[in-house]
Order: sequence, then structure tokens, then C-alpha cells
Amino acid sequence: MDLFNVLTLTEITKRLEDTFISSLLPTETLPLNQALGRILADDLTAAEDVPHFSRSVVDGYAVRAKDTFGASESIPGFLSVVGAVEMGHPAAHAVRAGEAVYVPTGGALPEGADAVVMIEYTEPFGAGQIAVHRPSAPLENVMSKGDDITVGETVLRGGTRLRPQELGVLSALGVNSVTVFAPLQVSVLSTGDEIVPIHEKPAAGQIRDINSYTITGLVEAAGGRVRRASLVKDDFDALKAAVAEAITDSDLVLLSGGSSVGEKDYTQRVIQAFEDSEILAHGLAIKPGKPTVVARIGRVSVFGLPGQPASAMMIFKAVVEPLLQKLTGANALPMVSQATTNQEAALSPSLSTRSVLAAASSKIHAAPGRTTFQMVALEMRSGELFAVPVHGKSGMISLMSRADGYIQIEPAQEGILQNQTVQVILF
Amino acid sequence: MDLFNVLTLTEITKRLEDTFISSLLPTETLPLNQALGRILADDLTAAEDVPHFSRSVVDGYAVRAKDTFGASESIPGFLSVVGAVEMGHPAAHAVRAGEAVYVPTGGALPEGADAVVMIEYTEPFGAGQIAVHRPSAPLENVMSKGDDITVGETVLRGGTRLRPQELGVLSALGVNSVTVFAPLQVSVLSTGDEIVPIHEKPAAGQIRDINSYTITGLVEAAGGRVRRASLVKDDFDALKAAVAEAITDSDLVLLSGGSSVGEKDYTQRVIQAFEDSEILAHGLAIKPGKPTVVARIGRVSVFGLPGQPASAMMIFKAVVEPLLQKLTGANALPMVSQATTNQEAALSPSLSTRSVLAAASSKIHAAPGRTTFQMVALEMRSGELFAVPVHGKSGMISLMSRADGYIQIEPAQEGILQNQTVQVILF
Repeated sequence: MDLFNVLTLTEITKRLEDTFISSLLPTETLPLNQALGRILADDLTAAEDVPHFSRSVVDGYAVRAKDTFGASESIPGFLSVVGAVEMGHPAAHAVRAGEAVYVPTGGALPEGADAVVMIEYTEPFGAGQIAVHRPSAPLENVMSKGDDITVGETVLRGGTRLRPQELGVLSALGVNSVTVFAPLQVSVLSTGDEIVPIHEKPAAGQIRDINSYTITGLVEAAGGRVRRASLVKDDFDALKAAVAEAITDSDLVLLSGGSSVGEKDYTQRVIQAFEDSEILAHGLAIKPGKPTVVARIGRVSVFGLPGQPASAMMIFKAVVEPLLQKLTGANALPMVSQATTNQEAALSPSLSTRSVLAAASSKIHAAPGRTTFQMVALEMRSGELFAVPVHGKSGMISLMSRADGYIQIEPAQEGILQNQTVQVILF
Repeated sequence: MDLFNVLTLTEITKRLEDTFISSLLPTETLPLNQALGRILADDLTAAEDVPHFSRSVVDGYAVRAKDTFGASESIPGFLSVVGAVEMGHPAAHAVRAGEAVYVPTGGALPEGADAVVMIEYTEPFGAGQIAVHRPSAPLENVMSKGDDITVGETVLRGGTRLRPQELGVLSALGVNSVTVFAPLQVSVLSTGDEIVPIHEKPAAGQIRDINSYTITGLVEAAGGRVRRASLVKDDFDALKAAVAEAITDSDLVLLSGGSSVGEKDYTQRVIQAFEDSEILAHGLAIKPGKPTVVARIGRVSVFGLPGQPASAMMIFKAVVEPLLQKLTGANALPMVSQATTNQEAALSPSLSTRSVLAAASSKIHAAPGRTTFQMVALEMRSGELFAVPVHGKSGMISLMSRADGYIQIEPAQEGILQNQTVQVILF
């Protein structure tokens, strides 16, 4: 048992990126209506202009702008109405000097017209004429062909998560299906002789399998797919067989339990029994979660998470989820200097993790030399937001449910003072 | 056409709550591993204690605390080791005066013991004895039966959204299946003679069906289920038939297009053609989105959203999504004085909507007397977060994709000054 290969949060994050980040995931092509929330694999270039015809953005009359120059409330211009554009059809009439054509919002701009006068600034003047009370500038109230998106333009970068509005852009371009990164395949293995399935009544000394449910939920919430969530006895051969099966179809294997320095610590030995395996860290300078094992078998990342559900969850949020996010393709591509704001936002921790600032309701102690994660509940007190540490005995499952998020205290920080402003990363 | 029934955001929100909020959704019972993200229908009471046996939270020796009183580094206490607790089994040996039993973390506390001395504070002393170098207080390093969750305790309130940690609590209690609110059933109908399906090449004057995709995405992201997303011609009978079908199986019908005061505005007339229908608002004092129609047919809520995708999306976020969230059961139950912090958090707009504070990069104009929604992109400039208004011609689809969120300017506000701090509600 190597007790000395304990890495800091910064070290393990770098180590994980160096080890796994080059292995981009396979991609898959999905119909647009199944792509919500998925990560676009490649840059997407517009194959056509949007709009593909010049159109009016108001209800009004398509005109030649210069015919309206000088028009005013007191001295209106007069134009002959020679037709009306129907929605969904090309303009049937061209606009020549002295003429106007009615056009509804979104209707096609007739040939010859270069502006639209809003209907509010016109009035009927008998015999197919209108009076125009205001001058129009060229292109006023017109969206020209390609104004929104120009053919050949890169509209979405690879690595972009597809929100409803990106589905809108793709549908405007007639993109029926998109190539996205395949979700990360994950195996969740709970180990421990004391663990029983949740439908069983545990005897004294036994507890139910909590980690299968919390860790599966965390993986799914992060966009991964759980291939299996199994319970494995603390037995070298049983665990080795379970891991051997998991690595055949998973990108990530999450073991929980069995990673503390105790009599029954098989995790490290099992991992080392595989060819081309490597222990990246046996222990992290993180509280809670110190006994975490981080390893690699081939190109599969393997974590031995603490057995205690709250500790396992914190390590997942702090170490596993950032890796999972990167491996699912988001931000995996190099930043380009013309990066869209969405990508910049995704790279900013304060935005991608959705955090709020709050005042610490009390002093919070930190573990010297370790990154301390403290779960907190948020409470509004007289209009001010407070982060209230959720304390309890180690291993309490109810703690997690009382927490709205957590704060991260760096190894160099001694702790948090009462009323100090802290950043709460929301669950 | 009633042009005067234009409601403010506050008025329509209240009107919607009064009209729909009493109609709680049907519930369904799901296996625990399918319940992530769903809303618990009823309060959940613990049917057993967690833990259901007293256990050690450290590796060490179970002792009678009073046998260690007075023990110190220089004058250790001596105890006879009479056995070891195995994980997953009840303690086989009781602890009597002068005795100790080895117990691993999570192991059952033997009868007679009331504390556990950490192994670090003991050393073997030959002949089955240990020396104890520190006194233990009663209950030290012990989690007693029911310490975490006590039988009869309300562990989760109805209306709670089930996160991974709530699945953990439920699995600890052996709750195999949970009763949650059924997802809201939604029909999405895009109307407009100019709209063609996205796989078709639109002719001049036509545009592709963007709203089906953006609105479906918004509904799914908010936890609703889209029963159908159909394209309907701007024809009274066709639209009436589509709405008649939709209300048979939907809680919410979202029409888009056809709600501006134009020649082809059928939405209101179609709604009024149904018995027990009511127009709650024809027009909202909101920019963008003024022409929105809000109505009721029986107990189904019906929205006529603007045809422009960006406007339709803003109205969805501002008016439809809050209703949808309430109707899905979250926060639908009356607050109790002992409300959990989670529920309080869910009721606080700043938390439930996940917003960030940023400085306005430029002056932002507001529409007098209306609630103005301005989409913004977030940009980090020299470490400070700026909200940059996303401007463009009305109806530009690319605007939505460039936005990270939006700011809400109240009717009484004249606008936002450059560098003023604004709350950006994230998409």
C-alpha cells in the first residue's frame, strides 16, 4: 500500500487532463429533435443564407425609399398601391417609382422596393392611393437576405452544448440531424460486504446500497450514461471480474467503498492486476475524500470513491464531474481567438458551475494543506443570503439532502470567518 | 378584436396562478432509479431509523467510555481485547468492564460499549491487551441508531425535486419506488401559411419551422413532455381541429404565430369557439412579446406565443416556464413554517433561476410602462463580468444563440445605465 502518492486537487486535475483529455469520444448522428443538451462534435457552417429572401420586419408598405424623402405630417407623399404581398408567397408585384405594395411582417420584399413604411405612418387616400407621413431611409424595416446568418459563416463551434436556441439556429438552416459526441459510458460498482440491495431489510451491521443511487444520479445529471450499477462483494476475484466486465464497455468506472487504508482494501490491488494499468493517485489532499484512488486501465479512467455517500458525492463533484464534462466534448477543442461568448462563458468556472455569493453564517474550519469542501444550505435572512454549514457526524446521509451547494476552501486558506463572503457552488 | 385586455407581467402571473394553480397534476409511481429530477408528490415519512443499529464512525476499539477516563500518554489505560466486529455482521462479543472489541468504520457497536477509541490512540500491549492513550467521552465516534434519520420523521416534503442526494436518502430508507407528479403534457402547434417543415427547402416568402424546435426544447428542459409538435396552416377550421385534438391529452397548449393584430389572427377566435373558454389576456405589457394571447379552454392553459422565435422564447421563459414549474408540483404545496431550506431556496427567484450579477456594458433602453426583457451575452473583461446586450433586427434567430441569459427591466425603470450592476438570469 503506497501511502505517499497523495495528490492535491490541482495536481490530480492536471494529471487527469494529461492522461485522458486527448481521447476524444466517439460521435453519433442524431435527429435534431433528440439533440437537446448534447455537445456538437464539429464546427457547423451555414449552407444557406438566413433569411434566404429579403423581408419586411413590420406590417406596412414596401416602397422605394427616395419616393418618401421629404414626406411629413403636414406635407405627405402620395403613392399608388399596386398590390399586396401574401405570407408564404414571393412578391407578385414589383415596386416602381411612385408605387407601394402592402407587405405583412415577415412578407417578401417586392423587387424594386428598398424600405418598408410602417402602416401607422400611412393612411388610405382613395382610388388606390396612400398618403405617407414620414420619410423612410433605405433598408428601413427590411431584413435583407443573409442579414441573420450568411452562407459559409461558422454558426456554431464544435464543443457547443445544444440549448433550445441552438436547435432554433439549426432548424432555420434546415439541419435535420447533427453529429454530437456520444455520451460517456459509465459503470458504477458499489463494494462492501456490509452493503445489501435497497429492497432488502438490512440486518444489524449491514446497510443499504446508497451509492449506486446517488452516483448514478450524479452521472446522469452530468450527461453520462450508466451502463450498470452493481453491488460487488469485497472479494478480490469478484471485484476483478466486475472491473474486467466494466472496462469492456465503459469510458469511466466508479467504484465506491473499499478505498480506505483498511484490511479489506482491494481496489488498488485489483486495478494493478490489469495490464496497462496505472495508479494516478492513491489518496487526494481533499477533505472529505482523502482515501480516493484515481487510476487508469488502458484508456478507461477508474476512480475508487470513498464508501461514505456524502464523501463520494463531493469527490464526484470536485474531481469526476469536471473530467466527465471535458470528456463529453464540451470545451475539449482548443479555444480559438474568435471564440463565441458562449464558449468563453463555459470556460469561466463562475458561470459553468452556477454559483452564488453568500455570507458565511458562522466560522468554517478548514483542513490545513488540503482542499476542504464544506456543504452548505442557503438561507435568506432579512433579505441577505447566508451560507449555513451543514454539519453532522461523518457518514450522515441526511446531510447531503439538506445542502444546496458547497464552498471550496483552498489549502492555503485557514478557514472562513463569520460573515465572510463565499462563493457557493450550487448542486 | 379586444385591444384593451393587455395585462402586465405581475397581473398575468397572478391571473395564471388563480386560474390554474389549484389543479394539481396527476401523480405516478416510479422505481427509484427512474425518479431523478422528478417532483415528490407527498411528504415522505421515515419508516425506520437510519442507521438502524449503532455503529462506529472510525476504525478503533469499542469501549465503555468510563474505562478510559483518566487515560493519557504518560498513564495509559489497559483493556483486554475480547474480539473484533466484522463488517456486515452484528457484533459477536459484548464489551464488559475492562474490555475492548475492535470495530472498523461502519461496524456495529457491540453491546455494552458506548464509545470508540480511534486506533491511533491505542497500541497493542501483548497478551490480548491494548494501551489506551486518551480518554473517550460517552458516544464519542459513535453514530447511534436513528442519529441520521429517526423513524416517523418527515425526511422530504412534497414538492421537493429529487436530486441525487434525495435518491440517497430514499435508498437509505429502503424506498424502492416513489410517487411523483406526472410531467406536464404539452402540445406545440406552429401556425403560419409561410412556415414549412425543416427538411423542406423554403421558397421565397417561406421560412422553416423554427418554433417547433425551440419551444419543444424549452418544454423538455423545463421537465414537460411534448405530446406533439405540429405545423398548422393559418386556417380557422384546421387550427380549431388541431386545438381540439391537443386539449384532449394536454395540460398546456402552446401556439406560436398568428397572435399579432393582423389579418390572419385566428388564435383568439379559435379559442373562443370552444365551450368553457376564457381569454385571460390578449396582449401583455412585455417587450418583446406584446401580442401574446393567454387563455383557458376548460382546465387546459393555452398560450398564443409570438411567431418570432426570439420573442416566443422570451415569453416562454418569463410567463410559461414559471407556470409550468408551479404546475409540475414544485412549490405547489403551501409553505409550512418548518419548510426545509431547499424549499425556501426554490422559492427565492435568485436561486431557482440561477442568476449572476454583471455590469451592463452599455446603456440599455427600456419600453416605458412595459416589462422589458433584454437578452445579453456574458463577457469577462479584465476579470470583471459584463452583460453585453445582444442587439439585432427583430426576428433574427442568431440573436438567441449569442445570448447567455437575459435581464428584466421593470416597467417603472427608465432603463439601465452603463456599468450599472444587473442581475442576469441564465438560460
